[in-house]
Amino acid sequence: MEKQELLYEGKAKKIYATDEQDVLWVAYKNEATAFNGQKKAEISGKAQLNNQISSLLFSMLHEQGITTHFVKQLSDHEQAVKKVEIVPLEVVVRNATAGSLAKRIGVEEGIRFEQPIVELYYKDDALGDPLILAEHAIFLKAATQEEIDSLKAQALQINEILSKFFKDKDIFLVDFKLEFGRTSQGDIILADEISPDTCRFWDVHTNEKLDKDVFRRDLGGLTEAYEKILQRIGG
Amino acid sequence: MEKQELLYEGKAKKIYATDEQDVLWVAYKNEATAFNGQKKAEISGKAQLNNQISSLLFSMLHEQGITTHFVKQLSDHEQAVKKVEIVPLEVVVRNATAGSLAKRIGVEEGIRFEQPIVELYYKDDALGDPLILAEHAIFLKAATQEEIDSLKAQALQINEILSKFFKDKDIFLVDFKLEFGRTSQGDIILADEISPDTCRFWDVHTNEKLDKDVFRRDLGGLTEAYEKILQRIGG
Ligand SMILES: Nc1ncnc2c1ncn2[C@@H]1O[C@H](COP(=O)(O)OP(=O)(O)O)[C@@H](O)[C@H]1O
Ligand SMILES: Nc1ncnc2c1ncn2[C@@H]1O[C@H](COP(=O)(O)OP(=O)(O)O)[C@@H](O)[C@H]1O
Ligand SMILES: [Mg+2]
Ligand SMILES: [Mg+2]
Repeated sequence: MEKQELLYEGKAKKIYATDEQDVLWVAYKNEATAFNGQKKAEISGKAQLNNQISSLLFSMLHEQGITTHFVKQLSDHEQAVKKVEIVPLEVVVRNATAGSLAKRIGVEEGIRFEQPIVELYYKDDALGDPLILAEHAIFLKAATQEEIDSLKAQALQINEILSKFFKDKDIFLVDFKLEFGRTSQGDIILADEISPDTCRFWDVHTNEKLDKDVFRRDLGGLTEAYEKILQRIGG
Repeated sequence: MEKQELLYEGKAKKIYATDEQDVLWVAYKNEATAFNGQKKAEISGKAQLNNQISSLLFSMLHEQGITTHFVKQLSDHEQAVKKVEIVPLEVVVRNATAGSLAKRIGVEEGIRFEQPIVELYYKDDALGDPLILAEHAIFLKAATQEEIDSLKAQALQINEILSKFFKDKDIFLVDFKLEFGRTSQGDIILADEISPDTCRFWDVHTNEKLDKDVFRRDLGGLTEAYEKILQRIGG
């Protein structure tokens, strides 16, 4: 497979075309961003860590029966994925209060939900990725009702698999963000990444944060935290 | 019936106890507020207008089979209502984009929805009344799933009645906010007020705004707009 022109540069990844029509070349970046891009830093090693963690988690999800965009790892910081039309929704699954939700509803972090909660945020940096209802997403033509039903059901299934996987590694999966995409066949499949950039991971014994909150809140070294995740999941 | 001690003073109304256990005395205020209390004015005549408009609309809803807290009008600016335990949710029904929703999702105002949309906002001034999901409301113990199902169904029924009522008066009911309360029997019934403070009313021919947006956006006289509403609905 051959890397071709740059199609899109996001905050965390560069996406290239390849000589295969349906396959994209993803190069992870070392840049860390938070608060909708207001806080930024170049952190050497981050690209490799996220690429390896995400590759490992997508492979594991595939083995557990989840259809994903992941094709294969290409290098320490690169991977091949199936090209999809990204659904412009950030699908957040929460097992406990934290972050923006804890602020929004005025409660402390770490209160566990009886049932996981799935939220939809409209993927639009200019609007600050607002929380929206399924009804708004449908009005915006971000997705159809059927697509939303599908991605919500998949998000909950993925949460079950990931929560168990991380629990076995003494990590509490507090919440995470997923993106889904439409294949050329019209199926909705898991895309983008699953990494410490997109999840909240707390050590079950010490409550140590092992995710992007160390960067957002200046709690220590980002690569040290991400390396702990990679080690624990067997990378 | 006798007016007793002041129980609560809100932004728009004062609530007094009465000598009847289950009945409250509501005195509408002349104060206009917007943007969570940041913009304020004293507008003489507003109390009377909102009291009369709300009394008229609650009576009409009662005739149409909706159970409400409304008991009777006591004076030009006062009414008696059944005491309820207010559910801390602002239940917003929208027939078209406007206001905070149009901003949130980045679209212009006045685009009609195929189906009305019901939204829940957590009634908490300190948090700025944030949009929340039913799942959050249940977690916060604001209401149970059954109560939310009930108040959403009632909100849609009320929307059908009000939309038709106002359409016959050449007014487009763009959106409105409702509050519900629990009776001592545990029923969820319509409470609070329905007035140009809590609805968006647009003249169907001229698109003239006949609601609190004239105050929020400095579009003219508030009492003039509210008087037009009262006249058109036959007050
Ligand atoms: N399989 C895929 N096909 C097409 N686009 C994808 C795929 N997976 C992820 N993307 C998109 O790649 C872009 C780059 O990722 P990222 O740098 O994380 O962007 P962002 O700044 O939007 O978070 C994002 O818009 C993401 O939705
Ligand atoms: N039937 C009722 N029983 C008890 N409280 C009520 C009833 N109807 C309305 N209320 C409450 O009366 C309070 C005063 O109204 P208002 O001035 O509009 O307050 P706010 O500043 O919260 O908007 C509000 O908290 C409202 O929820
Ligand atoms: Mg991203
Ligand atoms: Mg009020």
